[in-house]
Amino acid sequence: MQTPSIPQGTRDFPAAVVAKRNYIFSTIKQVFELYGYQPLETPAMENLNTLLGKYGEEGDRLIFKVLNNGLNDSKKVDKTTAAFENLLAGKNDTNLTERALRYDLTIPFARYVAMNHNQLVFPFKRYQMQPVWRADRPQKGRYREFYQCDADVVGSTALINEVELTLIYADVFKKLDIKVNILINNRKILQALAALCNATDRLTDITVAIDKLDKIGVEKVQEELIQKGLTESQTNIVTSYLNITGGNYEKITALEQLLGHTPAGAEGINEIKNLIAMVQSNNEKAPIVFDPALARGLNYYTATIFEVKAIDFAMGSIGGGGRYDDLTGLFGVKGIPGVGISFGVDRIYDVMEGLNLFPEQVGVSSKLLFFNLGVAEAAEAFRIMQLLRNNHVSCELYPENVKMDKQFKYAEKKGIPWVVFVGKTEMDAGVYNIKNIKTGQQKQVTALQLINSEY
Amino acid sequence: MQTPSIPQGTRDFPAAVVAKRNYIFSTIKQVFELYGYQPLETPAMENLNTLLGKYGEEGDRLIFKVLNNGLNDSKKVDKTTAAFENLLAGKNDTNLTERALRYDLTIPFARYVAMNHNQLVFPFKRYQMQPVWRADRPQKGRYREFYQCDADVVGSTALINEVELTLIYADVFKKLDIKVNILINNRKILQALAALCNATDRLTDITVAIDKLDKIGVEKVQEELIQKGLTESQTNIVTSYLNITGGNYEKITALEQLLGHTPAGAEGINEIKNLIAMVQSNNEKAPIVFDPALARGLNYYTATIFEVKAIDFAMGSIGGGGRYDDLTGLFGVKGIPGVGISFGVDRIYDVMEGLNLFPEQVGVSSKLLFFNLGVAEAAEAFRIMQLLRNNHVSCELYPENVKMDKQFKYAEKKGIPWVVFVGKTEMDAGVYNIKNIKTGQQKQVTALQLINSEY
Repeated sequence: MQTPSIPQGTRDFPAAVVAKRNYIFSTIKQVFELYGYQPLETPAMENLNTLLGKYGEEGDRLIFKVLNNGLNDSKKVDKTTAAFENLLAGKNDTNLTERALRYDLTIPFARYVAMNHNQLVFPFKRYQMQPVWRADRPQKGRYREFYQCDADVVGSTALINEVELTLIYADVFKKLDIKVNILINNRKILQALAALCNATDRLTDITVAIDKLDKIGVEKVQEELIQKGLTESQTNIVTSYLNITGGNYEKITALEQLLGHTPAGAEGINEIKNLIAMVQSNNEKAPIVFDPALARGLNYYTATIFEVKAIDFAMGSIGGGGRYDDLTGLFGVKGIPGVGISFGVDRIYDVMEGLNLFPEQVGVSSKLLFFNLGVAEAAEAFRIMQLLRNNHVSCELYPENVKMDKQFKYAEKKGIPWVVFVGKTEMDAGVYNIKNIKTGQQKQVTALQLINSEY
Repeated sequence: MQTPSIPQGTRDFPAAVVAKRNYIFSTIKQVFELYGYQPLETPAMENLNTLLGKYGEEGDRLIFKVLNNGLNDSKKVDKTTAAFENLLAGKNDTNLTERALRYDLTIPFARYVAMNHNQLVFPFKRYQMQPVWRADRPQKGRYREFYQCDADVVGSTALINEVELTLIYADVFKKLDIKVNILINNRKILQALAALCNATDRLTDITVAIDKLDKIGVEKVQEELIQKGLTESQTNIVTSYLNITGGNYEKITALEQLLGHTPAGAEGINEIKNLIAMVQSNNEKAPIVFDPALARGLNYYTATIFEVKAIDFAMGSIGGGGRYDDLTGLFGVKGIPGVGISFGVDRIYDVMEGLNLFPEQVGVSSKLLFFNLGVAEAAEAFRIMQLLRNNHVSCELYPENVKMDKQFKYAEKKGIPWVVFVGKTEMDAGVYNIKNIKTGQQKQVTALQLINSEY
């Protein structure tokens, strides 16, 4: 007999966890919809060719591929064998694996837009909350199945979209009661920095090094730049850039002096200024922080970039995003720029657990457990329960007439706050005894009082 | 350049469809929770060994297997090659595919209960709404990715569970406004019929034949029974059973005469009687119909079986379930009986579309579109929008200052009912023009009236 288990890096979510996760999902969803974003759902499997080559070599290796069915068909044996040879050689072959599991939500979204761009209404604002799968080595906080939660607007270059996405971040984290910094920067500023260093061709190296500032400190960033072949004077320019500190407007002023004379620099700084001003004129408490050292690894960002960090809890970023020039070019449809953000739901969950931020009432247990005290008593309890349910009060009857102690334990373990006794005396009187499991408080109530939660 | 597509038998769900599907899901979920059922979520991938052998030979073939990663590792080449030979021979090998996609929700549930039975509180009432994947040939109404929606209670043999599940069916379909028959039967009655035929060993043949009555008629059922080797007198007994008609109590009375003297028959009939009586004493309009010809193909059912059919729309069953004796025996944990039901969400969707049953307000479009009439005007519009959003009114601003016509078309195509004009005059007056897209009705409102939806 096998001992059952689940695949490494995957999780079962019991009721209490589902309730808390749904609290996060529904908060985000509600805010997305207030801003006119609409849901999209795509299938878990995509054609392998849709995914391959979109996430770099490492990404390709981490895609879960789905074996074609019916491969033992003798007519296909040559093709299948050739595909298997390819597999051993580290190559992908759709004769073996035509489909694969979604690796993120961006490429399926791009695929959807490319397939449907003639029917879609632009600007197209969509959100998507679905699981993705990656064959990463599992470790603390890293899973092989996890949810992504993205909002993107495509077909518009207006900065107002960035303003709204920043406000969405501010609104969601305020609702979740998580204190955050919404870090912003602009890739045009990083381009200007590279140009100032006379190293436009080294933009990626500079970006990658800067991205590590948080983790390794400024000296190690300098070392990395030198290692990558930048000169000392180039490295000094980057250092002076990284040394810019202060409030948003101090940093902007300093940057204007450093980069304001370059076209890209002026444009990027201007976008940052406008974004901050428009956000703050609508929500003066929005925690928007201009961070010149914010770089974001992904190369397709071209202007504003976002990253969200919790203030009171040590955790990597719990959100990120940015503007891109070209969503669907890879699928043959040009000219669709956009901007998007995503929420790191698993990390948000950990922050909220760590800081005890979930509201107490988040849960899905019944409000009342009716004790089962016999056939006639249970029938009466059942009658009252149907009235309660019709009035949206969740409740249950212990299905068997067993010892009170066992029924009591059931309520306790399931976190049902109230138990109700419907015995012969109570039936005659039309008044029922209820008891609060936590406080021990006891009361007598009528059916009407139960229905109206007057106790 | 590849033309993007999605795998055969899978679907993208755009916003309008997501909203309608969520309407169904949330209605079901709400009722489940009123009856004390709690959510469970399990991973999309299970270990292949968890799934294999649970769905019959045909089922094993239709499981989507996930290729192991890193198979081009030279150290593994022998094992991988052997596994590939097995694959060509039609055998499964975890050295090639260790994991597979969930094929239904019952086996993952059983796996979960078997893994956690020491911690769980019994009776354990769980519901689960997640996609499953099957490599079936796609056809109308049959997909390779589709949702299942199950509720089960395990660890209790009380008939009250069947009563509640019947009431859940009645409540959900009433809320969805679908007229249905909730058909019930009891496997013990079918056992008694087989015993009466002196053909206890032919229970499956009899069940399978009876199950087809709806589709092929009584004469073809008789033919099939003869073909399967039943004698004419045995077939006559089955025919007299199938000829029982009338209301619930007429059918029960007739059955009591036919089978009431056998122990299994008496027990099954008694359960049916009690179930109907208890359901109707709590919901006299519950459309519960005793159908002796209901058989349900699945063999693990042992007592009550359920099937739900829409009355006004030609469609197979839109729900089904039953009682089983042993959920987790396959995973080495004995003594966990239970009863469960499921909802066929895709079919329910089709019925509701076909009968136009979705409420008009089901949708997720913004309520208002603010026209973009310039920088200052957009800033003012934005200010009002933030007030609206803080008051839970969804709205959006067209992000670019383009021709009115284009902005109007956007609202029209997205189904946004109202457009708002915030121009210079309106800003000065503090009164805004709004227009209903469908009716053409125009009004002047203040910001406060907008917020309070007084228009």
